[in-house]
Amino acid sequence: MRMVDLIEKKRNGKTHTKEELDFIIQGYTNDEIPDYQLSAWAMAVFFQGMDEKERAALTDAMVHSGDTIDLSEINGVKVDKHSTGGVGDTTTLVLAPLVASVGVPVAKMSGRGLGHTGGTIDKLESIQGFSVEITNEKFIQLVNQNKVAVIGQTQNLTPADKKLYGLRDVTATVDSIPLIASSIMSKKIASGADAIVLDVKTGAGAFMKELSGAKELAEAMVRIGRNLGRNTSAIISDMSQPLGFAIGNALEVKEAIMTLKGQGPKDLQELCIELGSHMVVLGRQANTLEEARELLMESIHSGKALEHFKTFIKAQNGDPSIIDNPEKLPESKYKLDVKTDKEGYIADIVADQLGIAAMMLGAGRATKTSEIDMAVGLELRKKIGDFVKKGDSLVTVHSNNNLVDEVTEKIKSAYTITEEKVTPPTLIYEIIN
Amino acid sequence: MRMVDLIEKKRNGKTHTKEELDFIIQGYTNDEIPDYQLSAWAMAVFFQGMDEKERAALTDAMVHSGDTIDLSEINGVKVDKHSTGGVGDTTTLVLAPLVASVGVPVAKMSGRGLGHTGGTIDKLESIQGFSVEITNEKFIQLVNQNKVAVIGQTQNLTPADKKLYGLRDVTATVDSIPLIASSIMSKKIASGADAIVLDVKTGAGAFMKELSGAKELAEAMVRIGRNLGRNTSAIISDMSQPLGFAIGNALEVKEAIMTLKGQGPKDLQELCIELGSHMVVLGRQANTLEEARELLMESIHSGKALEHFKTFIKAQNGDPSIIDNPEKLPESKYKLDVKTDKEGYIADIVADQLGIAAMMLGAGRATKTSEIDMAVGLELRKKIGDFVKKGDSLVTVHSNNNLVDEVTEKIKSAYTITEEKVTPPTLIYEIIN
Repeated sequence: MRMVDLIEKKRNGKTHTKEELDFIIQGYTNDEIPDYQLSAWAMAVFFQGMDEKERAALTDAMVHSGDTIDLSEINGVKVDKHSTGGVGDTTTLVLAPLVASVGVPVAKMSGRGLGHTGGTIDKLESIQGFSVEITNEKFIQLVNQNKVAVIGQTQNLTPADKKLYGLRDVTATVDSIPLIASSIMSKKIASGADAIVLDVKTGAGAFMKELSGAKELAEAMVRIGRNLGRNTSAIISDMSQPLGFAIGNALEVKEAIMTLKGQGPKDLQELCIELGSHMVVLGRQANTLEEARELLMESIHSGKALEHFKTFIKAQNGDPSIIDNPEKLPESKYKLDVKTDKEGYIADIVADQLGIAAMMLGAGRATKTSEIDMAVGLELRKKIGDFVKKGDSLVTVHSNNNLVDEVTEKIKSAYTITEEKVTPPTLIYEIIN
Repeated sequence: MRMVDLIEKKRNGKTHTKEELDFIIQGYTNDEIPDYQLSAWAMAVFFQGMDEKERAALTDAMVHSGDTIDLSEINGVKVDKHSTGGVGDTTTLVLAPLVASVGVPVAKMSGRGLGHTGGTIDKLESIQGFSVEITNEKFIQLVNQNKVAVIGQTQNLTPADKKLYGLRDVTATVDSIPLIASSIMSKKIASGADAIVLDVKTGAGAFMKELSGAKELAEAMVRIGRNLGRNTSAIISDMSQPLGFAIGNALEVKEAIMTLKGQGPKDLQELCIELGSHMVVLGRQANTLEEARELLMESIHSGKALEHFKTFIKAQNGDPSIIDNPEKLPESKYKLDVKTDKEGYIADIVADQLGIAAMMLGAGRATKTSEIDMAVGLELRKKIGDFVKKGDSLVTVHSNNNLVDEVTEKIKSAYTITEEKVTPPTLIYEIIN
């Protein structure tokens, strides 16, 4: 088999066999196939696409390019959740203790954030003492004991995906449904998931700006999951504005606590209940979505969900007292309101810009080695559809330095205010499974 | 300017500016843009194409990626000829002395052959003493004196094209009209041509198998020439079988001598007169193609053309006596006839297979360092449309060793013989200018 022939085959719109895809991915992982051939092939895939069988075979090849995590010692169906990214997405912080509290094992392998989208581990580390540096044995023991634990990505998981993603990023071959879908699914499967719930974002703040693209991606991933023996459901949700109110590490932990008490932002709660109920059904703790939803609401209202968060934090050496005293979480020195000088209805909030503003404050990493400031970030006061008067606060900035002029400008320019009434966007567009 | 953005631009079907194409070609030549970005871009060009302005700008950028030859000290319009390759193509050997004999300056920079298509320099070097190792000054002096000289490619001409071609070859991005057309035209223009006549081959033995593709390529090159101030004409000619009868270095020199006497193969003579008359018109030695044709036929019949070949050979230290005594050219030890065991009409001759058979005998280089045997090669006895009886010779093999079984098999399998009468193919399909 010669790589040049496989590039030509895909270029001419033909279908790859499983053996060919294994050859490509193995050869690339072992540095036997050079970058310049993979990038030409990726561009051919961009134009010619891949069919359902090719997508599953590509995913499988990436899963086996490195280590795979064996979670078989954990009792029950291990359900993982993945979000296609976004700004201020606190769903994982809420969902992990919430679905664990109704018996679904959550064995979460998570990463740190880069750029303006935060990482779950960073958020959890804003809790004093919380550590994800645990052994695999301890991780499995904790999940069996508490139904929930989070571990850092230390293993050599899907090296092919890491290498290919780096290459796609500099060769304009990121926007390809088969390549995106296999990248996401290979990581979830290599991490040991039995079943997967996907939160595919759409709208201005999402990677998939159009609903049609988000739907295509969701369908692609659900089919890959099915073809590789992992039950998969996808929710297509709105990211035309940030989810919830908080953007920033400690701020999002506080928001998660509020949500687990049933006092969080409505959109965040609605999405968590939707995603959670799919996780509960796939995890076989309920027979129907309706039943699952009731279980979750009951756990919130009884305080069981919040108690479970406490147990989870304690088990990983975090300070559980922050649950009852959230003011113990890192707080910034300054709180400043960004006020509007216009009256009208909020028509648009550019989520990416708010994410970048939070990063500039220190809430996210500009480069891999940047230090994160856990206390800083943004609290949204107004969302799409809200009416504002001159002088109303749009956002409260939590900062540790006075130099917030640039940040204030970024936030102001992220908001569009119109005279006409605006209907808030739909939160959940579609369910695919 | 960032290369990743330019790849995305082309991928999305947009048009590059001249500045962008200069950036790409300069950056790639200077190793500032890596192979993996160029190959992804080339694949995007394969799918999205380039418009007329982009093609001219790309060609110009490649011309200026290295040295350019200044032929301004040569009197008259320097007309270069280029063939898109093929097997047993003796046209350059005939055309150089022929058009020079009617006053068109031929300042030919030529290369050695690789694979199964022969190089003009290799063919000329089968003449004892002939040398292309002359200085630029001597080269210009010879063209002014005799209207014809050949020099080897020693300068750093179009390094971008060399680098890009090498990359395209291993990334399945060769078959792109804008990339092929700019590659050919950049070399001709960098070599100092004022006007260019192109021989674009089509048919089974050519790179462009289909007439439509050959026509598209020819039009692309003619337009690039026009946009860069070089009058360019293209002839689309048949390569569904080898041109003439000879394949091999000394054999082709003998065939050129016969053709310059008016006794060569009909197809070779016809194509040379067609190409030559375009060269004469572009070189302003005749006002019409008809007039040019008469000039050339007159030069052949008067013996002037053959005499000019003698002068040309002598000026480059070759033995001119081979013109009157072609048997002084290298001859092989063995001559063997490959005979047919079928009766019928020749329906097809796979030119590539005969080229490979000649290479196996030693007439061509399998690798860059292979030694060429000037004496060996093939003499075709039958061409498409000819009737053969059992035992008739198809090809005479000129060999210096006895191990010709494999070669014989290759030749036999290159011929298809049918019972139905076959019409010989058209030689010249179209003229584009």
